[in-house]
Amino acid sequence: RPPSAIKMVQTQQTYWATIESDIETHLKKSIPIRHPVSVFDPMHYLTFAAPRTTAPALCIAACEVVGGDRAQAMAAAAAIHLVHAAAFTHKNIPLTDRPRPEPIEHKFNPNIELLTGDGIMPFGLELVAESMSLGLNNPDRVLRVITEISQAAGSRGVVEGQFKEMDISLSEIDVGLIEYVCKKKEGELHSCAAACGAILGGGNEEEIENLRRYGLYAGMVQGILNGVGSKNRKGLQEMVEKLKVLALKEVECFKGNGKFDGILAWFESELCNV
Amino acid sequence: RPPSAIKMVQTQQTYWATIESDIETHLKKSIPIRHPVSVFDPMHYLTFAAPRTTAPALCIAACEVVGGDRAQAMAAAAAIHLVHAAAFTHKNIPLTDRPRPEPIEHKFNPNIELLTGDGIMPFGLELVAESMSLGLNNPDRVLRVITEISQAAGSRGVVEGQFKEMDISLSEIDVGLIEYVCKKKEGELHSCAAACGAILGGGNEEEIENLRRYGLYAGMVQGILNGVGSKNRKGLQEMVEKLKVLALKEVECFKGNGKFDGILAWFESELCNV
Repeated sequence: RPPSAIKMVQTQQTYWATIESDIETHLKKSIPIRHPVSVFDPMHYLTFAAPRTTAPALCIAACEVVGGDRAQAMAAAAAIHLVHAAAFTHKNIPLTDRPRPEPIEHKFNPNIELLTGDGIMPFGLELVAESMSLGLNNPDRVLRVITEISQAAGSRGVVEGQFKEMDISLSEIDVGLIEYVCKKKEGELHSCAAACGAILGGGNEEEIENLRRYGLYAGMVQGILNGVGSKNRKGLQEMVEKLKVLALKEVECFKGNGKFDGILAWFESELCNV
Repeated sequence: RPPSAIKMVQTQQTYWATIESDIETHLKKSIPIRHPVSVFDPMHYLTFAAPRTTAPALCIAACEVVGGDRAQAMAAAAAIHLVHAAAFTHKNIPLTDRPRPEPIEHKFNPNIELLTGDGIMPFGLELVAESMSLGLNNPDRVLRVITEISQAAGSRGVVEGQFKEMDISLSEIDVGLIEYVCKKKEGELHSCAAACGAILGGGNEEEIENLRRYGLYAGMVQGILNGVGSKNRKGLQEMVEKLKVLALKEVECFKGNGKFDGILAWFESELCNV
């Protein structure tokens, strides 16, 4: 790479690092350790125990690429993280009929983990609804985002993906099923995140739908690379390449836009160098 | 009772019966049996498997007593029921550290019950957000109601009550703890329901707060009578009588209002004849 390209990549890495650090700061401020400690201590811990997901940062980037302010999408980005944290918390509760319990460290009892996950999810939507009082967004956009996040979190989104995930067998690879689960889990989360960012940033309907599809494809790639599938299996490797092409096509319309380089750099570092 | 009073009670019983039947119709229409059946079949079943709670009907009555239309509060009433149904579903999942599992019939595996509860909760908030499109409410009221329901469902409401409930011992009665749990569970649910109904019906701030406190006291009485405590214990019997007096004081301001008799009849049939 020529020196200017290296500099561009470094600048964009800083861009993403500031987004992620801003979201973390916002979340830490939103969930203070307060009374009752028996409730808020596990809530705080389990919010940050979930593995990193890029969906919240994509929400902010989508807001900025359509010309919005970071602050407008901050509560939605936090809510997207909380949907992820609640799903992760519940996914790891030891149940009698779980197909294969994953060995993770449990700091709290199953009942506490169950209840905390139940508390984390509505808390995210509360943050979005309350963000209205900051005067940054209009109520119609906020209500639309609440509908988007509720649907993505619920039984036509992440929850449906978790249902279907139970059918995945370790012994044989069912490419179609893995694609479906990745679409509903990481795909839906990133798709919703990007659409919400675009809505809150004041994007037009075309931009919102472009970013929604970008998030869907990019999220599916993440799902395949990081989790459900294995990128080395032939069928999956092909799917990843196909999804990457589809994703980039959706954001071409933002070329020349100052924030477009950020989306591109994210794409390269998250989806190509894994 | 003189014949006119008997007639009044009958009329009011019809009033409550129509509210409850309207809510059920609305819920059944909102959760169709659709694809994927593996997700929506348990969602449908578990939504209606929870024992009856009077909170959703109180939401409608509060809306009407401040002069609102039933349709304005219907989505919120459904969401209140779904918060209750999700909490009930999760409460009955067999976990290793549950203090005393209650013997109930499980139609689904624990993992399905967990995921279905996770899907039911955001679905309620989705219904409220989507109710905007019917043109019955203004967005500020709807956002306020979403905040109210998220808080009541979450870690400062029902979830906190469930945390504290684990500390209740069967062998000795801790009146203060039972009061706290009833306040956070049935109390918070009824309090939120009544406040949301009043907000959506266009009540003023004083009416909203009166109905919120009425719901709190009336819900606590229900919690003590039906569940956590036993009304025959001396300390609890006194508390019930005290709460009933407090509750009625909050709705005195609606005397002379056509819908007040409904609230009064509900109070008598639900809280006094148990």
